[in-house]
Amino acid sequence: MGEEISNKQVILNNYVKAYVKESDMSLRTSKIQLKILSGCDDAVLLKNLYLSIDPFILTHMKNEEHFVPPYKLDSPIFGYGVSKVLDSSHPNFKTGELVWGFTCLEEYSLIKDPDTLFKVHDKDLPLSYYTGILGEFLEPIVMIGLFSLNVRLKINVFRVIILGMPGMTAYVGFFEFCSPKKGETVYVSAASGAIGQLVGQFAKNAGCYVVGSAGSKEKSAVALMKVDLLKNKFGFDEAFNYKEEQDYNAALKRYFPDGIDIYFENVGGKMLEAVLSNMRLYGRVAVCGMISQYNIEQHEGVHNLLYVLTKRIRMEGYQANEHYHLYPKYLEMVVPLIKEEKITYVEDIAEGIESVPGAIVGLFSGRNVGKQVVVVARE
Amino acid sequence: MGEEISNKQVILNNYVKAYVKESDMSLRTSKIQLKILSGCDDAVLLKNLYLSIDPFILTHMKNEEHFVPPYKLDSPIFGYGVSKVLDSSHPNFKTGELVWGFTCLEEYSLIKDPDTLFKVHDKDLPLSYYTGILGEFLEPIVMIGLFSLNVRLKINVFRVIILGMPGMTAYVGFFEFCSPKKGETVYVSAASGAIGQLVGQFAKNAGCYVVGSAGSKEKSAVALMKVDLLKNKFGFDEAFNYKEEQDYNAALKRYFPDGIDIYFENVGGKMLEAVLSNMRLYGRVAVCGMISQYNIEQHEGVHNLLYVLTKRIRMEGYQANEHYHLYPKYLEMVVPLIKEEKITYVEDIAEGIESVPGAIVGLFSGRNVGKQVVVVARE
Repeated sequence: MGEEISNKQVILNNYVKAYVKESDMSLRTSKIQLKILSGCDDAVLLKNLYLSIDPFILTHMKNEEHFVPPYKLDSPIFGYGVSKVLDSSHPNFKTGELVWGFTCLEEYSLIKDPDTLFKVHDKDLPLSYYTGILGEFLEPIVMIGLFSLNVRLKINVFRVIILGMPGMTAYVGFFEFCSPKKGETVYVSAASGAIGQLVGQFAKNAGCYVVGSAGSKEKSAVALMKVDLLKNKFGFDEAFNYKEEQDYNAALKRYFPDGIDIYFENVGGKMLEAVLSNMRLYGRVAVCGMISQYNIEQHEGVHNLLYVLTKRIRMEGYQANEHYHLYPKYLEMVVPLIKEEKITYVEDIAEGIESVPGAIVGLFSGRNVGKQVVVVARE
Repeated sequence: MGEEISNKQVILNNYVKAYVKESDMSLRTSKIQLKILSGCDDAVLLKNLYLSIDPFILTHMKNEEHFVPPYKLDSPIFGYGVSKVLDSSHPNFKTGELVWGFTCLEEYSLIKDPDTLFKVHDKDLPLSYYTGILGEFLEPIVMIGLFSLNVRLKINVFRVIILGMPGMTAYVGFFEFCSPKKGETVYVSAASGAIGQLVGQFAKNAGCYVVGSAGSKEKSAVALMKVDLLKNKFGFDEAFNYKEEQDYNAALKRYFPDGIDIYFENVGGKMLEAVLSNMRLYGRVAVCGMISQYNIEQHEGVHNLLYVLTKRIRMEGYQANEHYHLYPKYLEMVVPLIKEEKITYVEDIAEGIESVPGAIVGLFSGRNVGKQVVVVARE
């Protein structure tokens, strides 16, 4: 028998109807033994260090069994994280190793099926990066469940936001779907987020002119900070707060007097319409997300698809996890960039397991600046 | 001096405001000498045999100089045709040769700059085919004019419909942009037109399941005939009259219970919206035209572009003339198919120069069945 210590866990109190509130969750302190019991084979006991706060969490907080397996009420909710192995009865994992992958939002987790845990491959890099720029996740159970369902709009929307792998998503979307050429003009919406910040920097590295937009539900300081980050930290050529623009079309004309070659689409609806009006001949639109359309009843119409024809635009949706084979190539590119500080990756790291509920809620109001992470312990 | 004979010409009486009417044109009989005068170098005198009735003609009938050079009032209007050389002062052309390309809608034409005339390369095929399935046209003056203008929606719309080359348009759109695989499901809108009929047959040859829709402003016999043609002549697996469908979505579900892999887009608007709802994962949309959107003030909104994201759809606009390099490859494929009667190409051939005004008007109400041609003389 190992030492038994307290384990703070984030618990779901009730299923969420529309937007998530902090009161939908609570913190519970339970007990956990720091040793795997004999007879419990192929398990791993983790001390969670960094927890990834991802949009897909919301989908499991809703009671839509036909869609994704809902979290169990009064149980710790699952998610992605970076952890240290405290004990292992699985041949692939040893005590003391660092891993990343599927865990629970709590201080310590006993993982009985560690197939979705991967070893940290480069200890010179910040550990938290494995929740974002370095992570490559697939949630197999959910994926299988979704593919076997009839495709209803709602289901599909969530299927997209279910996977958290900002680095690969930025890389695949920009290089494979946007086919960038030096000197081209690139527009990134939701540019200060986990994905957008990387797209902008990849585009600058590729010799493009890059403009990003960002905003926040709470106007104000957060939006200002995001725009400032885009220009002064990520090196975008220009950036603007879309919440302050009455007319997206006019804003885009201001920043792209000669038009847009590449649009990295995170927003959809009216923004997409304005972009199409400002695209150049042979423009490319990589559709990574359409967040403006996720939580509204009546989806906005796009009235100028004629431009797809007249400007010979290519518009394509994608999911990074379907381009797994590029992961080694991506790491080969991105790891040196990180080490040589040629790329900046901003994380919004909240302190302590207690900050998880607030961080989840903040994600949906644009409160976070950069990739949202919670640090539970540093070692 | 050669013999002087009478020459019936189609004349534009006045510029067209919205839809074209027969009374916008008239027939004039003038005189023409059947010999090129000495001193008139590099000219070709043509006897026009087949005239191509194309949508782009309407664009020149409007007085929108900023957009395309309008026809001169009281002058014969220009277009594409297949002709016989009666006399030539150009080194490339000889009396008696058959040519196709830029001419005027009249019985005889003196072409002073025959750079847009090409020799008929295969006399075993119906001559009229050079206005359609075998033609590969580019209108250089107009193209240059357009590319140097600011891109306004209207301009762009017309830029697309200005080029008449159904065969290459079908080939490039289907094989290059739709990436068809054996067993995939294909939907073609405006399927009985010059382009659609070929796409459907190319798709059948490629081992796909193909459904086409057609219709006509005048419901009735014409629509029935079109649907019948699609199934019984072009070999589409299924066909329907879209004018009889209250709900495009339901119609598509009926014909594609498992969804659409490839959509060859000729229509746009509500039809595109219904198609997106019925597309399968990794669907492809080749945007060849959006005819439902050309002559309306308020363009229809497409509200479900989220599907582009969730189903990873690729949607792309194109113009066949930008893929010239494929023309020899196209001929290599299509000529044997025509000769072995493995492909059917339906033309709506009206008799006599007098039928030109009616044929032009008919094109915009869907009266024609297949590619609209006027035969002026057979040899």
